[in-house]
Amino acid sequence: MAGELIECVPNFSEGRRLEVIEEIIAPFRKERGCVLLDYRADPDHNRLVVTIAGEPKAVQQALLEASLRAVKNINMENHRGSHPRIGAVDVIPFVPLRNISMMKCVELSLNFGRVFNQQTGIPVYFYEESAQRPERRRLEVIRKGQYETLKAEVKKPERHPDIGKTELHPTAGATVIGARKFLIAYNVNLDTENEEVVKFIAKAVRASSGGFCNVKGIGIYLKERGITQVSMNITDFERNPLYRVTELIRVEAKRWGIQVLETEVYGMIPAAAIVESLSYYLQIKDFSPDQVIELRLLDLI
Amino acid sequence: MAGELIECVPNFSEGRRLEVIEEIIAPFRKERGCVLLDYRADPDHNRLVVTIAGEPKAVQQALLEASLRAVKNINMENHRGSHPRIGAVDVIPFVPLRNISMMKCVELSLNFGRVFNQQTGIPVYFYEESAQRPERRRLEVIRKGQYETLKAEVKKPERHPDIGKTELHPTAGATVIGARKFLIAYNVNLDTENEEVVKFIAKAVRASSGGFCNVKGIGIYLKERGITQVSMNITDFERNPLYRVTELIRVEAKRWGIQVLETEVYGMIPAAAIVESLSYYLQIKDFSPDQVIELRLLDLI
Repeated sequence: MAGELIECVPNFSEGRRLEVIEEIIAPFRKERGCVLLDYRADPDHNRLVVTIAGEPKAVQQALLEASLRAVKNINMENHRGSHPRIGAVDVIPFVPLRNISMMKCVELSLNFGRVFNQQTGIPVYFYEESAQRPERRRLEVIRKGQYETLKAEVKKPERHPDIGKTELHPTAGATVIGARKFLIAYNVNLDTENEEVVKFIAKAVRASSGGFCNVKGIGIYLKERGITQVSMNITDFERNPLYRVTELIRVEAKRWGIQVLETEVYGMIPAAAIVESLSYYLQIKDFSPDQVIELRLLDLI
Repeated sequence: MAGELIECVPNFSEGRRLEVIEEIIAPFRKERGCVLLDYRADPDHNRLVVTIAGEPKAVQQALLEASLRAVKNINMENHRGSHPRIGAVDVIPFVPLRNISMMKCVELSLNFGRVFNQQTGIPVYFYEESAQRPERRRLEVIRKGQYETLKAEVKKPERHPDIGKTELHPTAGATVIGARKFLIAYNVNLDTENEEVVKFIAKAVRASSGGFCNVKGIGIYLKERGITQVSMNITDFERNPLYRVTELIRVEAKRWGIQVLETEVYGMIPAAAIVESLSYYLQIKDFSPDQVIELRLLDLI
């Protein structure tokens, strides 16, 4: 039996002080069994988004170490930034990648939440697939009013943490932990400057306007290029595959004689997603990610 | 620096005796750092084709062990089968997969050839990218007349082995070793019973009739299904990508109002090949195999 592999995208509330950012990231660089795939610090958001992957134990070990460093360096009482947040270690999503089910990943997130609380003293809310109350599946619900509001409202029963005391950590606030599916950031660029049209098309594909259930998206004008873009997050690529989203946008764009100029896969994508969409276009029968030779070599880990 | 990974597809001249087949395969199963991806024994061909991948050292170690077992069990004097062959360990192609150049893979094959000859006493011919004489790039040239003819002709200068004595091993014959690119076995099925048409289309795409330089192919009738198939080997998927081969077949089929029913990827395919072809259909800008998250985890090996 080959090893389990997960992805994790922890968000820390520090996007400005480079030395703190480096200190938080260091454990992800040095932990054996964990690969640091990407990190982006945004000074406006005052936030650090890290993407790591690897064996569950190694990932969790590095996460704990990085979190302790975040707690040591970040004081939510002084934190300002344009992105919503409730804590120094704001949110930790675990994503099943290989040889691990979603159910197992939920279990892992719940266990990690307990250890995390014990070691940091930070109260924990569980979200997405790990939510302990239905409304907490949605991050917005847990983060409502952000740190400043939650500090008072944490005493109310409906805002009690799932783990820990009914008060925020004095400097590190609270943390949201959970398991979710892989998220693909995908953009489709259109050869029109017409913002009205791109907004119409975005509505056709996104869940909030009645489109695909696992697509979030907005239509935006890219001024410097004089084109428009349907900017999307696909939150379940098995239910809403790339080819289907793309071809629907093509169909909608045709009404105005508009073409798809190009698309962008922003960041990481799982092999299964590209195998599925290529199977559509080439009409490949019974094509499986197991046929991708490099994936078979993951058994060596 | 992450580790080098290669594929290897050794062919042994035994496709009937199950206990011998199992004995030859055993080292590929147990060698750490080597993954046994596939093996197929064909009784008519009386031949065993094994697909392995992994770290160069582990792959070579398992190959030597398997080859010694093949030499012990196979006697070319008694070998009969419908597939051309010159030895018990008939051919060993090395294929660069990851973090290794073709040049490095050629070097590896040449070194392996020397060690192989020392340990088995079998004379070695180098082919494909490792060929020491231009005409020996082609396997057919080296294998001309097969074991029975080569036994006599090996004395002629133009048939001297590249390594070893100018006589065949008394029971194991000779072995062909070399480095080549990844080969994709790809079939396109057409909704016609017309064999003439499928042969016309096969000629349009294959190198031997003036088509794509790195495509071999034939048009065949699949009697049991009442359809036809362009059955291909793509020997360089970077120069002749899947999408281009498929779309050309579609274009040719249109002349007769014939549709592509489905396609088949037979066996393994490298991630770069699916990334490239999906990029075409989705018009993805600057899409790289490095964005396939599972591939990044190969750094853990």
